[in-house]
Amino acid sequence: MPTAGLVIIGNEILTGKFPDENGPWLIRRLRTLGCDLLRISIIPDALDEIAEEVVLQSARFDWVFTTGGVGPTHDDITFAGVAQAFGLGLEHHPELVAVLRAKLGDRCNTAALKMAEVPVGSELWWDGGVIYPLTVVKNVCVFPGVPSLLQLKFEKVAHRFVGVPLLTRRRTTTATEPEIADTLTEAARRWPEVAIGSYPRLDETPIVVIVTLESRDEAALIACDRFLRAAGHGLE
Amino acid sequence: MPTAGLVIIGNEILTGKFPDENGPWLIRRLRTLGCDLLRISIIPDALDEIAEEVVLQSARFDWVFTTGGVGPTHDDITFAGVAQAFGLGLEHHPELVAVLRAKLGDRCNTAALKMAEVPVGSELWWDGGVIYPLTVVKNVCVFPGVPSLLQLKFEKVAHRFVGVPLLTRRRTTTATEPEIADTLTEAARRWPEVAIGSYPRLDETPIVVIVTLESRDEAALIACDRFLRAAGHGLE
Repeated sequence: MPTAGLVIIGNEILTGKFPDENGPWLIRRLRTLGCDLLRISIIPDALDEIAEEVVLQSARFDWVFTTGGVGPTHDDITFAGVAQAFGLGLEHHPELVAVLRAKLGDRCNTAALKMAEVPVGSELWWDGGVIYPLTVVKNVCVFPGVPSLLQLKFEKVAHRFVGVPLLTRRRTTTATEPEIADTLTEAARRWPEVAIGSYPRLDETPIVVIVTLESRDEAALIACDRFLRAAGHGLE
Repeated sequence: MPTAGLVIIGNEILTGKFPDENGPWLIRRLRTLGCDLLRISIIPDALDEIAEEVVLQSARFDWVFTTGGVGPTHDDITFAGVAQAFGLGLEHHPELVAVLRAKLGDRCNTAALKMAEVPVGSELWWDGGVIYPLTVVKNVCVFPGVPSLLQLKFEKVAHRFVGVPLLTRRRTTTATEPEIADTLTEAARRWPEVAIGSYPRLDETPIVVIVTLESRDEAALIACDRFLRAAGHGLE
């Protein structure tokens, strides 16, 4: 199954100037696609930190998605960070330069052309006949930070990240977590292919615990679910 | 100024079963306190990944806040992860055991007592006369994942993380980013103590760029702001 990590680049998120909308959106979208998202890091616009996180995630996951830091201003340094991660230089990509010139005309100044300055050897993905392609460096897909743009660009390339979506069961009980803990531990031992989560909802009346089961193995999921319901904690 | 990192532990966030409410809440709260949040990582309930991220953040920031994974079930392994980060063992803390026994009575079984099994040498913070203290391992504060509980517990200890809040100015222009880029670069060079951010709002009509200035140096902030307004990009 494809795995992915997400690097959200932007001081504005960490300082609370703007809420992050891309993380929640990509979480839902990747789940639907069946691509396992295994890590999200939100980091500042800082060269060394971008490079460090890209190195870590690129080695560990099939795909890395970065968001933010690809505009023409001084705080847009994502391409430089990704280049540093892989020990690559930066160069103006002729195809990106051509698109920017066609789009911006007279307004295509040096600052605008910074958007075309990408790591040497970057691939451009033109999927879906887009006007402006996605820049991909090895397994790192560099997305813009503006949510509507990110979503548009992601949908064009989403077909590349398709896996098998997880199957889920959700049960609720008014028993407490200490009361059901041994049963869950035994279920987790018997069905290692099923991820079992236990989430107390203390703000609800009555207080309930939501138990979730997730797996790509339907038979194991059904057997595990049956075991939990038979254990007598009112897991319905 | 105090610095902080945040480690959000939970498969349920990454798989989209529950949205993360703690990150956005802590971002706003730390900003108000004047504590600089410099990194957020959202990671699975996995021992090695918890330990790895705690090692990284603990060395780099004054404070690390973890959320989630402190209940009595098999998927609650935050204390074990933090212990591994520092090469510590786990032990039942007598004061935590006493609180749990007093609170749960007959229902205080082996699973419940797992909540009292913390890294050797953990400190307990009883600030504000709470019934159940916060467990702190070196500079790592271990918070629960349930948002209402986290908020209650955080408010009791918030006084420990107080710094000087950032001063902010925000300007809006209908000029494009390429048009204002050189001016921003020059301002960033002249006033390195001012963090300048540029955020295009492509979903608004007309399209605007929001430019934010942040600093703890009021004179620099005012001078930088004046420079930008004088530069003639309609930054109002």
